[in-house]
Parts: sequence; structure tokens; C-alpha cells
Amino acid sequence: MIALTEPGGANEIVVSADDALALSERVMRRAGYSEDESRIIAANLLDAELCGYPALGLARLITIAEDPRTRQPRNPVSVVHGTPVSALIDGGNYVGLYALHRAAEIAIEKARASRFALVGVHNSYLSGRNARYVEMIARAGFVCIHTACSEPYVVPLGGKVSAFGTNPIAFGLPGDPDPLIFDMGTSAITHSEVVLASRLSEPLPEGVAVDAQGLPTRDAAAALAGGILPFGGHKGYGLSLMIQALGLAAGAALPRGRVQDFGFLFVVFDPGLLVPPEQFKQLLAELIRQVKSTPRQPGVEEIRIPSQRAFQERRRRCLEGMVLERRLYDSIIALAA
Amino acid sequence: MIALTEPGGANEIVVSADDALALSERVMRRAGYSEDESRIIAANLLDAELCGYPALGLARLITIAEDPRTRQPRNPVSVVHGTPVSALIDGGNYVGLYALHRAAEIAIEKARASRFALVGVHNSYLSGRNARYVEMIARAGFVCIHTACSEPYVVPLGGKVSAFGTNPIAFGLPGDPDPLIFDMGTSAITHSEVVLASRLSEPLPEGVAVDAQGLPTRDAAAALAGGILPFGGHKGYGLSLMIQALGLAAGAALPRGRVQDFGFLFVVFDPGLLVPPEQFKQLLAELIRQVKSTPRQPGVEEIRIPSQRAFQERRRRCLEGMVLERRLYDSIIALAA
Repeated sequence: MIALTEPGGANEIVVSADDALALSERVMRRAGYSEDESRIIAANLLDAELCGYPALGLARLITIAEDPRTRQPRNPVSVVHGTPVSALIDGGNYVGLYALHRAAEIAIEKARASRFALVGVHNSYLSGRNARYVEMIARAGFVCIHTACSEPYVVPLGGKVSAFGTNPIAFGLPGDPDPLIFDMGTSAITHSEVVLASRLSEPLPEGVAVDAQGLPTRDAAAALAGGILPFGGHKGYGLSLMIQALGLAAGAALPRGRVQDFGFLFVVFDPGLLVPPEQFKQLLAELIRQVKSTPRQPGVEEIRIPSQRAFQERRRRCLEGMVLERRLYDSIIALAA
Repeated sequence: MIALTEPGGANEIVVSADDALALSERVMRRAGYSEDESRIIAANLLDAELCGYPALGLARLITIAEDPRTRQPRNPVSVVHGTPVSALIDGGNYVGLYALHRAAEIAIEKARASRFALVGVHNSYLSGRNARYVEMIARAGFVCIHTACSEPYVVPLGGKVSAFGTNPIAFGLPGDPDPLIFDMGTSAITHSEVVLASRLSEPLPEGVAVDAQGLPTRDAAAALAGGILPFGGHKGYGLSLMIQALGLAAGAALPRGRVQDFGFLFVVFDPGLLVPPEQFKQLLAELIRQVKSTPRQPGVEEIRIPSQRAFQERRRRCLEGMVLERRLYDSIIALAA
């Protein structure tokens, strides 16, 4: 790998997208994934890095390499129950970055044939940036609503023991030139932010976690012993519960009998079932244009549209390369060796 | 109509469910709806009242009777574009309480035949408590994700002019004995709460609205000239935008060419496409049981599950009748005369 420049001196390094992809593939090969699998996982992580989400980007190479599940046996990702419009997929203990990529491909294939697809995935983990899968599906011309639940980190409203994952929900709508994508977690803070704050002994923001006694805490270690709060009070709690419940339809409880486990659901449909697809794209572009040109509050420079900045960043970094912390880069190099 | 008792003296009256239904039907007949239509609208409003949502209950009889759209001509609610799995429905300027009831029936019919249904409704208004429609669909054995967008009341993040409706999203999952239902708006406060505060000259809570200059305000009249904020910062904003965009697939822009208008979408599927329906219900019951029995924070009496209290209240009020404000009751009686 060639470092293009070193803008931050010894602490940073600029890496091209091609080099980052090749390096990431090597790390995944070392972790035991095949060439094809490694390419898919690496492209997924690289994309998060390019889009400006470093916590879900190349740093995850280390997370995956270190996760005990990566060293446990894998079975091929397989459809255990299928119909022309649906697939229940056993992820075979594959990392979500691979299993969900396959699931999105299967959803697209079925939606192309039937204009609707319902796909559930279980027995997988670490799905990364869920916006990626709904983008794949939206670029194929379909609307996608995607939910992902996981092992418990988040307390229900009023609880002091966690019951839900950080449970993201993502929407993808086909658009012109780009789809409209929105992806959000339903927790007040991500689990990895709490882990990082704990490692650095930094305080958490107010109102994002409780300790093991159920009392509000800004101590990250105490929060790990207690739980993260849902975002947005009872609304975030309700959303989180529904996402956990939808995961049951994805077979979350099948591999280990636990109703609080990983479950990924894709609900996909052709908007052309209702309105002509080109008309839908035009109307969506008009809505985005109107929202973006809303008169602004004092001091606000721009009304932002979800996903637009990620697409811009991706285009820029594909051309210019990306800045990585030297320490991260060195760790990845070590894993690839 | 017989008032059973008068617990609050002259200011309140207890009315039985049967009497409230008959009275509500008469009001809707007076407003120009047919017998069948009146029965459906009345049952819908009564249900909201029984479930403990008076703002969406019998008080809405007055809102409907006074809405200028109620006096405008109506055409039959009709499917303008249909496939075996989908229906684009022109609400014919019918109140949403009727048009969406019909849409939910059509969604159930199609899902029974095809295990999936996509139904969009436009050219309608005032849909009431959206939990009702997803409950109908969930009790028929199907999962439902329902979104509803409307004319603008809510500003985008950083904006000072409204761009979105209060844009609820509702989820319904079949369960045993009851489905699991969750319904939330994506605005920080409802439009009717702002209207009420304005009439009573009461201050709004902090952080729910901006004035016409885009500055935070607690003055309800100023908020009506400016806009309501989305709930939960950028997450509520993103959800609100996606719901407005999904309304375009429901044909929101078709009747009047406006991309910021009423659009109601139902995405319905049989969870049995993925896992056996009885197993799904059992797993859902187990999840609810586990969440409900989560150890509680100090001072918290109960971990609440969305929809459970509404079902309890409905059962109780069906037996015991409901308490109405005398002033509301008198206004309704006047409309029925």
C-alpha cells in the first residue's frame, strides 16, 4: 500500500480507495473468509469509511478479527424457508456485513420477479452500516424498510436491565440521480460510543444511560453494567420494541431460543405497484428540492437531506483517498501480514 | 341518550358505548354521510374514546362537522390502480376515518389472497388514530407498517417554514391474545395541542416550536405562524421526511399536484412467509413477558407495553361507559339534532 501524502504528519496517513480495499480484503482473508466473501466484506467497510462513518469503517476490520464469533465455525449462508416472494435466511454465523449483503441481493432478485420481497436473516452479527443494504435495494428501483435487532444493550422505559439492541431502522427510496436513504439507531447513544468512552475514561452525555441500580449515569463503565436509554423517550422505546419484535419474524429466536438476539428484516416493494416509477422519482426530487429550499432559522447554513452528504463524501474520497489515523492503519497492516 | 350517572356533577356525564355510538352515527348522518359510512366513522371515533384518546375521540365529531372539506363534494372511495397485491385508492374527499377503514379492509383481503399487500390512499384527510387500522390488520393475522403524511405543520431541521405533516408511523404485529400495536407522531407536539394552547392562551412546552422568524417560541399563536419541530432532533426529522416521501407512493401529489399533502401507506405481510404464525405469536408473547418483567428503575411501578393500556381501557369503558365533558356532550347533542 502506498500512502499518498501525510497531511497530519506522523499521526495520519492518506490512503487511496483501491489500496484500502486490497488491504481490507487481505485482513478478511487472514480472518478465514474466502476471496469472494472477503471482497464483499471489505467493500462494505470501505464504503462506510468513504461515506464518512469511520466507526463503521476500516476500524471494524479489527472488531471482526477480534470477535470470538469470527473464530467459531461457519456454515454457508442459506435459505431455510423460501417462497417466490420471501426468504428466511440462516446467516450460518457469518458476519452480517456478508450475510446481509447476500440477503439484499436475494431481496432484489425476488422483488424483480414478484415486485415484493420479504427477507429475514438470523444467526449473524455485526451488520455495519445498514444504509448500505437499503441503498443497494433502492438503486435497484425498490423501496426498502429494513430493521435490525440484536442482543440487549438498551433498557426499556423505566427499566434498569437491558432488553433491546440499539435496533436501527433504515429506509431507502429510489430517486434520481441518487436514492433517498435514512438510517437511524433507536438508542440514545451507540454501544461502541459507550465502550470507547469507557476505554478513554471520558464522561457520557447527560441522559443517555443508567447504571446497574437504574440511576442516571454519565460514567461509561457504570453504563456498561446498567444499560443505554432509548432515544426520544417513549417514542424511541416503542420503536425499539417493535424492531425487536419484527426481528422475531426474521427468525431471531431460532438459533439459540432467545427472543432478544440478532434478527434482520427487509421489507421490499416496487413503488410502481402504486404509481409509475419515473413519476415517483420526479415527485421525490421535487419534495427534496422543496425541503432543501425551506427558509432557514437564523444561523443555519443549510437544510440537510439525509444521505446527500454521505454520497458527496464518497465521491470526493474515491478521488482523493481517505485520511486514516496512523495507529489504526498500523494495526490493520499488522492484521494483514 | 341516557346518562348513566353524573360523577363530576354538572361538568361531566357518563355515557354508555352503545349510546355514544348511536349519537355519533346521527351526527355523521347530519354531516351528509350515508348510514354505512356513518357507522364506520362513528365506531372509529368511539374506539379512540374508549381506548383513552379523547383528542381523537368524540370531540372529532365537531372537527369533522366543521371542516370545510366535509361540505365539499365527495366521490366514492375507489381503487384507481390495482394489482392482486396492491391498490392505489382515491379517497374521493372522504374523511380518512372512512377511507382508511376501507383501505385496511382491502389490504386484509389482498393479504389473505397473496400474503402481501401494498395499499396507498390519497385525496382524504383526518385519519384519526392510526393504531385502529393496524390493529384491524394485525387481528387478521398480518404484520402492518403504516405511514401517514399530511399538509405541512412541521419544520425540517434548521427550517423556519413547515414542510411536513405531523406524520405518524404505526406498527401492528399479530399476537395472542392481543396484537402488539405502536403508533407515534414524528412531531414534538401535535397540531391540535398547539391549536388548543393558542385558544386557551397557555404556553407550549420548551423546545417544541419556532416562530415565523425561526426562533424558539413557547407562544402557541407564534408557533402557528411558524412551525412545530420534529421530535427527537435529526432522527425525528429524518423519519418525518421519509414518511412524507412514502406518501408520494400513496399518491399524495396526485389530486392537487402538491408533494406536501395527505398520503397514507399500508405495507402488509403475512409473518408466516418466514416463520410459522403460531410460533411467531408465541415468541412475541415471550418477548413481551420478558420486557414487562425487566427489573425497574427506582420509583417506576410498571414497564409499560404499547397498546396494552388502550386495550384494558377499552374493555373497562365498554362495560362501565365513558366520562365525557358536559360541554362536549352538549355540543355533540346539538350537532345531532
